[in-house]
Amino acid sequence: MAIITIFHNQYIHMRTTLLFIGTRFALILFLSLSCLQVAKAQKKEQRPPNFLIIFADDLGYGDLGVYGNPTIATPNLDRMAHEGQKWTNFYAAASVCTPSRAALLTGRLPIRSGMSSNKHRVLFPDSKNGLPADEITIAEQLKQAGYNTACIGKWHLGHKEQYLPTNNGFDYYFGIPYSNDMDKLTEMPYWDYWQQKDEDIKTEHFNVPLIRNTEIIERPANQHTITKRYSEEAISFIKENKDEPFFVYLAHNLPHIPLFASKAFTGKSKRGLYGDVVEEIDDGVGKILAVLKDEGLADNTIVIFTSDNGPWLPFKNNGGSAGLLRGGKGTTWEGGMREPTIFWGPGLIAPGTVSDIGSTMDLFVTFSSMAEIETPQDRIIDGVDLSATLLNRETGPRKSIFYYRGRELYAVRSGDYKAHIITQGAYGEFGERKVHEIPLLFNLNHDASEQFNIAKEHPDVIKRINELIELHNSGLVKGEDQLAERE
Amino acid sequence: MAIITIFHNQYIHMRTTLLFIGTRFALILFLSLSCLQVAKAQKKEQRPPNFLIIFADDLGYGDLGVYGNPTIATPNLDRMAHEGQKWTNFYAAASVCTPSRAALLTGRLPIRSGMSSNKHRVLFPDSKNGLPADEITIAEQLKQAGYNTACIGKWHLGHKEQYLPTNNGFDYYFGIPYSNDMDKLTEMPYWDYWQQKDEDIKTEHFNVPLIRNTEIIERPANQHTITKRYSEEAISFIKENKDEPFFVYLAHNLPHIPLFASKAFTGKSKRGLYGDVVEEIDDGVGKILAVLKDEGLADNTIVIFTSDNGPWLPFKNNGGSAGLLRGGKGTTWEGGMREPTIFWGPGLIAPGTVSDIGSTMDLFVTFSSMAEIETPQDRIIDGVDLSATLLNRETGPRKSIFYYRGRELYAVRSGDYKAHIITQGAYGEFGERKVHEIPLLFNLNHDASEQFNIAKEHPDVIKRINELIELHNSGLVKGEDQLAERE
Repeated sequence: MAIITIFHNQYIHMRTTLLFIGTRFALILFLSLSCLQVAKAQKKEQRPPNFLIIFADDLGYGDLGVYGNPTIATPNLDRMAHEGQKWTNFYAAASVCTPSRAALLTGRLPIRSGMSSNKHRVLFPDSKNGLPADEITIAEQLKQAGYNTACIGKWHLGHKEQYLPTNNGFDYYFGIPYSNDMDKLTEMPYWDYWQQKDEDIKTEHFNVPLIRNTEIIERPANQHTITKRYSEEAISFIKENKDEPFFVYLAHNLPHIPLFASKAFTGKSKRGLYGDVVEEIDDGVGKILAVLKDEGLADNTIVIFTSDNGPWLPFKNNGGSAGLLRGGKGTTWEGGMREPTIFWGPGLIAPGTVSDIGSTMDLFVTFSSMAEIETPQDRIIDGVDLSATLLNRETGPRKSIFYYRGRELYAVRSGDYKAHIITQGAYGEFGERKVHEIPLLFNLNHDASEQFNIAKEHPDVIKRINELIELHNSGLVKGEDQLAERE
Repeated sequence: MAIITIFHNQYIHMRTTLLFIGTRFALILFLSLSCLQVAKAQKKEQRPPNFLIIFADDLGYGDLGVYGNPTIATPNLDRMAHEGQKWTNFYAAASVCTPSRAALLTGRLPIRSGMSSNKHRVLFPDSKNGLPADEITIAEQLKQAGYNTACIGKWHLGHKEQYLPTNNGFDYYFGIPYSNDMDKLTEMPYWDYWQQKDEDIKTEHFNVPLIRNTEIIERPANQHTITKRYSEEAISFIKENKDEPFFVYLAHNLPHIPLFASKAFTGKSKRGLYGDVVEEIDDGVGKILAVLKDEGLADNTIVIFTSDNGPWLPFKNNGGSAGLLRGGKGTTWEGGMREPTIFWGPGLIAPGTVSDIGSTMDLFVTFSSMAEIETPQDRIIDGVDLSATLLNRETGPRKSIFYYRGRELYAVRSGDYKAHIITQGAYGEFGERKVHEIPLLFNLNHDASEQFNIAKEHPDVIKRINELIELHNSGLVKGEDQLAERE
């Protein structure tokens, strides 16, 4: 549609010119150019869309302007939401990093791939394993249709060479292999360290390696410039690969603590350092969208912005805000897993606000559908195809969310309702673990803040959710815990 | 600027037509029409802007899509925010109805006009008094520049004839004189009544009169259709008065409980009845903005959307959400007084998000400035002129907010910081009143949720705010309590 409009505008422009020239030669020239234009448009339309995931780290539901933040200025993401689809019930597949990323890339619950654990919540620099080789990532899937693929940013699915992005379907990798607070060089105990002032937290305290493909090119990674460099790397890859379908997975390692911004952004935000960091990510989004427009790719590229899990609340103002949602990172309250999520693609995505349920696991299936690639038949895929909602605003097919903490199922959403079987506070808090004999029940559409337990009024809903859990468990083969072993 | 664009487009269109007709007659006709167009544009530009305040009742900071609500669909207000200025630090002047409205209309703190009380929080159907005659409303102020003025909706500044809008500068009044939960006809005690199911709460239980000018035209007012009728009344007034400057104060009496929507909106929202009601207000906003565009008034009309105070939280899902803000209606926490606030006017308002401080009291001064009317010199006006921010995105002049509960000062914001001298829970909760010897101190830009008391770290800020309070008190003449006496 956008192509037709561009063509039409060019046609009008040329017609006007022709009236002034008024020669037969010009008419022939015009007709030839028109044919070329049509051929080019057809070639482009035959191509499957490019995909670009921009993934933040520990960003809260309430951390963007268009999701209600009063002092973090995100004009680019706000515009992206206005031009695209703003999803208000979209979930990360886990409330911490490693399982969330594994699920996004494979379209499968981490309990199936073994990428979640009751022993260690994520992978660490001395972890033995990573994403099992037989798991299929979005990148591997899209390779079947000839996509050029890049992973830029934080990986956290295994730091050994065999587990790196280049062994998981990505042609190119530039980023850090695990969280930016790991490999700490100071002797101070972990929680003591974070009680210091912002200016005493230094990028050189974290011996995190920056890797290109499989080679360490900088250690410790300079985290002040890393957000900017990630955005620039994404732009370079887009420009270099614009003539073929591409998939870019741009996974910023911020605003996970420690927080660092470049000089241009340090001290810029009214929200303090946390705001500086988010505003630098927003700036990168603006630059990337501008390049897509400039390169004529905007009408055939789908950009998704979301995050891996909710805000790390025990870090106070150095953590984000879940807005009106309860809880944050590490918990199975909404604030732990529901994320600000924007789909953008002026030629493809139908603009508006969508309050249907979605999950990062759906991207695997949705991309496959749009690129006309069969999804694997030899395993359970938990994602569903969101294409009809994205392209035509049809009601979304997803009806449920399973909230795991480690390898245990804590809560289940079915339609409007969410039942909590177990509740517990965030990591780093003294959150008591509580098993509920009668689950807590909330109507999330009426009560997004999970304040008013309505279990007594709705035994029928509890019964239905219990049946759903039974069904889920009956088909469940738990993958071997890949996070347990450390060297 | 918009006029020039329209003119330019018409010019292009006509030129094309002329090329086809190609006669001298057409050229003369075209030139005559152009002159007329220019004359009309000049006449319009000389006119001061029209003003339209759309005021909601008990709407929370987190109740609109563009302020982060996940299930209340407000596409019209979202678009209004995108096209206009979305303010994120804009305050009602009190946390309950009567004082908030008195302050908006007079540009003065209620403590000065006497429109707040420690005895009764608002005016009731048996209250003796109302807004003192010597107070000057925005309507009276704008009358000096020949504006036609209408008050449509809830008044709540005195129900006796001498206190009604028609005696306070408004040419026209259509609405209810106090809150929609007053004049209750059932025998059930107030709080028991609200424990019933939504379907047992009936509009005929509230013997609230609907008044046109000074005459009761319907009693009890049919509250199911009242939101729709308010929007329609505003549209009629705009159409009838489009050739002269106008000021419309459209004060919806919803989403204050009891909640009622028309048939078309009942059951429509995913958020339940509260959402239905807000979505019907949003629909009215969309219709009003469309009429302003259709009538060619959009380039010289400023529309403001905001609310009188925060959500009434003890009413659970029949109350709204303050989003990430703490507390609600009746309290001096941010959730009690900070409101979603949008300024719209495509020809005048510079689009974007503004995180400077604003107050409903500023409208009096801002409108006066834009209409070139002197503000009264015989009294203290608490409002400041926001024109430069609205028109040119200059930094706002407001640096402080005084948070009163009744006639007592509970908290003060100075720049980024807010000090709480007294804290207390909402009406209808068992909120303990607590006087703080050392005030609680929050950095609102970093910590909008008022979670992290930083008083110890910033004795300098406490000192500065204490000096500000002394200055405030030294110039304060408290008006006689107009809410105390009941008949």
